[in-house]
Amino acid sequence: MGRVTASLDDLPLRDDLRGLTPYGAPQAPLPIALNVNENTHPVPDAVASDILDDIAVAIRDVNRYPDREFTTLREGFADYLGHGLTAEQIWAGNGSNEVLQHILQAFGGPGRTAFGFAPTYSMYPLIAQGTGARWVAGTRESDYTITPEEAAEQVRAVDPDVILLCSPNNPTGTPLGLDVVQAVYDAARGVVIVDEAYQEFAPRDAASALTLLEGRPRLAVSRTMSKAFAFAGARVGYLAADPAFIDALRLVRLPYHLSALTQAAAIAALRNADVMLAMVDEIIEQRDRISATLEALGYTPHESWSNFVLFGGVRDPKTVWQQLYDQGVLIRDVGIPGHLRVTAGTEAETTAFLDALASIGSAS
Amino acid sequence: MGRVTASLDDLPLRDDLRGLTPYGAPQAPLPIALNVNENTHPVPDAVASDILDDIAVAIRDVNRYPDREFTTLREGFADYLGHGLTAEQIWAGNGSNEVLQHILQAFGGPGRTAFGFAPTYSMYPLIAQGTGARWVAGTRESDYTITPEEAAEQVRAVDPDVILLCSPNNPTGTPLGLDVVQAVYDAARGVVIVDEAYQEFAPRDAASALTLLEGRPRLAVSRTMSKAFAFAGARVGYLAADPAFIDALRLVRLPYHLSALTQAAAIAALRNADVMLAMVDEIIEQRDRISATLEALGYTPHESWSNFVLFGGVRDPKTVWQQLYDQGVLIRDVGIPGHLRVTAGTEAETTAFLDALASIGSAS
Repeated sequence: MGRVTASLDDLPLRDDLRGLTPYGAPQAPLPIALNVNENTHPVPDAVASDILDDIAVAIRDVNRYPDREFTTLREGFADYLGHGLTAEQIWAGNGSNEVLQHILQAFGGPGRTAFGFAPTYSMYPLIAQGTGARWVAGTRESDYTITPEEAAEQVRAVDPDVILLCSPNNPTGTPLGLDVVQAVYDAARGVVIVDEAYQEFAPRDAASALTLLEGRPRLAVSRTMSKAFAFAGARVGYLAADPAFIDALRLVRLPYHLSALTQAAAIAALRNADVMLAMVDEIIEQRDRISATLEALGYTPHESWSNFVLFGGVRDPKTVWQQLYDQGVLIRDVGIPGHLRVTAGTEAETTAFLDALASIGSAS
Repeated sequence: MGRVTASLDDLPLRDDLRGLTPYGAPQAPLPIALNVNENTHPVPDAVASDILDDIAVAIRDVNRYPDREFTTLREGFADYLGHGLTAEQIWAGNGSNEVLQHILQAFGGPGRTAFGFAPTYSMYPLIAQGTGARWVAGTRESDYTITPEEAAEQVRAVDPDVILLCSPNNPTGTPLGLDVVQAVYDAARGVVIVDEAYQEFAPRDAASALTLLEGRPRLAVSRTMSKAFAFAGARVGYLAADPAFIDALRLVRLPYHLSALTQAAAIAALRNADVMLAMVDEIIEQRDRISATLEALGYTPHESWSNFVLFGGVRDPKTVWQQLYDQGVLIRDVGIPGHLRVTAGTEAETTAFLDALASIGSAS
């Protein structure tokens, strides 16, 4: 082989995919990578060793298909989430993206509409369109908040089949009140997903949408192990909802979608949740330090309940991004004019970012 | 919580999913499980230890997202497959089901048609319909073979967007000649997938459809590590095709779909391909022993190039299946009248199945 015989245009690709380019956050080998909201703290050695022990046991049976119902893992998530949840209310996938894809396959698809308040997580429109659903973007206030009244009005006007509420919101970090979730649920005919990927970085007394599940069968709360659990490489997302909602996802998931190794790793990590989550407080400290320093430099950081900060007042985001890149610091241009987004890293990484930014000069 | 508040019918499920039930091969804890064509030989200890070493390294960085392009793994598959293939011609997913889903998302979807010669792999229609494509079932001769002429004629009549050729075929075990693949490709406008999940169990001198890839950009050959590599629990499927075909799959896959643990495990297993494949000859021996013994018992086993045998002459498949089940032997009723399917296990498992069947009595 070796001879390239075709271009993408020569192939009978689906019409609505023509001209698209794949998701492409750069995976550049820079010393300081603060661009994709990873937890930059490695898994502690003692936990890594415990995970390996569980994987060693799983490999003994890896010739067999994994437990299709991942029962032990679902019990682990129910225990971790609390609020009286049981395994029958839990679902999981290879990253919360796959969990969202299952939702959009079950409740979205051709002729249906998915909705979120923009700017929000960039994968929502891609996952929705991948199932054939139409994506409709709602709006937020200029500080990226939304009031319950405004949210409900937009939902009534669009009448979507699937509503995705990112709480706190990515890429802005904005908190979302439970009053907004309730108002949206009451105004909606479709299913309402509260994506709490960054919930562990919110203030400890901030209530989760998990407290709203009772009596709301169209509501689901998704989470991920990628952020607080420092487990982005293991690809584990999960969700809590009514058992009937979970049954709907069983109809569209590929059988055995969660490998025996993934199940073993996640079960062991959940057993060590206290240790895994120990870095969360340190990350919150660095996030707040970023916000304070950015403000001192004349930028306008937005309130963040997540592990990243979106900041405005950047005269030329592309140039500042490149100048940081040239100093070995990778952050993210999320496409919002005048803004850049940075992940809170370790103390050393955060210092490297703040020093590099200060060396470029203060805000416009 | 705990109070179940809804049934599936109360939720705004996609209309075409209403009334469906999830994929449900029983996962029963029977002593002898020969129902889902697993490799019943565990991974050898030395290889398991090598895999664990690689996973231990991967866990050090598991807080970071995995290599989205899984470059090292793609190089490993290219080396394993041979035929001069390079990494840019390789794709992989969480099981070959996910690889097929990527294909159907890229080339199938709403308003498009997927086609295969029935009876064939039961997931094809489910994966096709999951993307909104229509599934059309072609026909085979009574012995489940297809001639090139007949195959081409059916393809021309249906004019499908995606054609799935299972080679050897599941659940029948039937070989598929490369002349059929060529005839189908020439008759088709859409993409042609040759699913070689069981190829390693075919005679050593049987050519793979990989030899046809050159100059055929609409052709793809899919494989899996679940069978010959005894890796069903690790969920690793892969595919070889033109680089432009691979680019199409990049448009629909979720970013970071292959975990760092999956990549590490598969890379280590491929490095040990010789040891991993050592049980293939023993499985072939047991498969041929099953066929010979079934014939002696008066059943009619179909020619198989896979690790299972479909056999006819079963007067009442449900009853025979239950009688075997009651003796601790799990095989598969694939829904073909008068037939059952059994996986070739270890020598002891195979003996247990054949003894149990003989105890029930000979064929109708």
